[in-house]
Amino acid sequence: MRIAATIIGAIAMTATPAAAQEAPPRLVPAFTIVAEIGPAEELGATARGPRRIIPITGGTIEGEGISGTVRPGAWDWQVDRADGCTELEAVYFVETDDGAVINVNNRATICPPAQGEESAPVFTRPIFEAPLGAYQWLGQGTFVGRLGLATDHPVPAVRIEVFRVQ
Amino acid sequence: MRIAATIIGAIAMTATPAAAQEAPPRLVPAFTIVAEIGPAEELGATARGPRRIIPITGGTIEGEGISGTVRPGAWDWQVDRADGCTELEAVYFVETDDGAVINVNNRATICPPAQGEESAPVFTRPIFEAPLGAYQWLGQGTFVGRLGLATDHPVPAVRIEVFRVQ
Amino acid sequence: MRIAATIIGAIAMTATPAAAQEAPPRLVPAFTIVAEIGPAEELGATARGPRRIIPITGGTIEGEGISGTVRPGAWDWQVDRADGCTELEAVYFVETDDGAVINVNNRATICPPAQGEESAPVFTRPIFEAPLGAYQWLGQGTFVGRLGLATDHPVPAVRIEVFRVQ
Amino acid sequence: MRIAATIIGAIAMTATPAAAQEAPPRLVPAFTIVAEIGPAEELGATARGPRRIIPITGGTIEGEGISGTVRPGAWDWQVDRADGCTELEAVYFVETDDGAVINVNNRATICPPAQGEESAPVFTRPIFEAPLGAYQWLGQGTFVGRLGLATDHPVPAVRIEVFRVQ
Repeated sequence: MRIAATIIGAIAMTATPAAAQEAPPRLVPAFTIVAEIGPAEELGATARGPRRIIPITGGTIEGEGISGTVRPGAWDWQVDRADGCTELEAVYFVETDDGAVINVNNRATICPPAQGEESAPVFTRPIFEAPLGAYQWLGQGTFVGRLGLATDHPVPAVRIEVFRVQ
Repeated sequence: MRIAATIIGAIAMTATPAAAQEAPPRLVPAFTIVAEIGPAEELGATARGPRRIIPITGGTIEGEGISGTVRPGAWDWQVDRADGCTELEAVYFVETDDGAVINVNNRATICPPAQGEESAPVFTRPIFEAPLGAYQWLGQGTFVGRLGLATDHPVPAVRIEVFRVQ
Repeated sequence: MRIAATIIGAIAMTATPAAAQEAPPRLVPAFTIVAEIGPAEELGATARGPRRIIPITGGTIEGEGISGTVRPGAWDWQVDRADGCTELEAVYFVETDDGAVINVNNRATICPPAQGEESAPVFTRPIFEAPLGAYQWLGQGTFVGRLGLATDHPVPAVRIEVFRVQ
Repeated sequence: MRIAATIIGAIAMTATPAAAQEAPPRLVPAFTIVAEIGPAEELGATARGPRRIIPITGGTIEGEGISGTVRPGAWDWQVDRADGCTELEAVYFVETDDGAVINVNNRATICPPAQGEESAPVFTRPIFEAPLGAYQWLGQGTFVGRLGLATDHPVPAVRIEVFRVQ
């Protein structure tokens, strides 16, 4: 019942002005995670393909309405697929300056660039789970990440710019 | 090693022109799924919250380079959370006109609008798994969906506009 | 706090008589699912390995305190791994005679027998989610399945004997 | 085809002697994991229920054909459900004495004992992923865990006795 109302509400919106209906959603900058990483550790071939671990050893989260650190003691667990792409799944916790602990699950598929093309940016599918309260919007929105090396960071790190779909 | 090269390639790109680096990624229309649905079936309260099933009974997929049907005999499995939002997970298969069968996993979180606000569009996190070949790009890209009722469809249905992150 | 108490309760038990501590848990028959299946449909090679669908078209669930049917319109989604084993994941709903609808997620890894050995039985890891009430024990216990062809069934079917760990 | 043969092989076996068919599978001791744990950290209420983290700080794995350590820097992530039970999901890596790194995913549902009853042992559903080679059997078998406090260990720890289904 409630969900029906919610969906009907959504359609009411998408059904109204043609312009609004046709414009794609936008990706609005939300915050940036810098995740410090240790050396990749190759685990060897498994039944699902070659596996490796990228240790996550610390870092920061900074953005509008959120500021904090990445907890050490976590990892990105990768597997190489038969199509030459690599699947990443990084799971870790960030702790905000006011003490909330938020779970991050960030997945991506990295594929080699087509021949003759420069490499494409790496996009990720981050999901957050936060306690109810100031940060519960993290578990209610839809987000996309853009992943790159944090070349300006004093230790090896990746930068994930997180955008909210709006 | 390979992945290191891939990430370095990615950073090489994001590190070059400041403009490119600062512009958010874009959501580019890829294709549209119209999923025909049956009446919601309330399963009652569970240990994780109230559950319901929305049967998926057919439909279509249409877009640049892809055209086909949604196979009947699938469902969207929903659960209501403590924060008033509902989690959706629809799992089904689409079959293209040239015979490829592609798995779709489409998740979303639908939250009621804040008081005094009109309802927001519903965004989804679709993941695809296609056989290697003409449709393998579906398993290599990053996508966002926009979900609404397909009011112009002859039978009850939802429309999912799928955008590729670029 | 509560969980601490629960774990302490558990250890109090396992810590007491040496005999109880050393005897392995037992697998006690709980109920049997007969799942009727359609012909396997080969989807071809994917980035994760060759995929196939085994349609689930009906069936029954029978046991102490539970009796009902398997809903049609579901499937077992399989993938062949690099070690010669096949991973199965069957997801479907059963409906009890008194109207409860229970989600079943049943996973297994099937490996070819070692050379010179007869084939081993196939064991599965079933997880259930039932509404609160008469069947909530399904979501609270730990279960193991034994999978075989239901040779005595009038249409092609598999039989899953489900055992509760005790 | 191959899978069909595998299932037919399995049924051929289970279909033969009635005695073999009727006896439940057995749980055969495989190895024991002692996981050292830090103090539980309560994260507060979330949209899925109250969450907590139990840090995993080290430990050992010992059994027939396997010996090694539990890597620190991991955690058990728990959530309390509406039925009074708690779901655990511990994810960590063990490293064998000969250098293999094995992923462990261990889930359990802990429920309070019924009124007037002593508490029940806690059973778990461990899944392993090991590199191909000496330990690939870990990713091919079906296992059940029995969880209790390791009262004889010098630091706070849980003991998981792991049994193979046979």
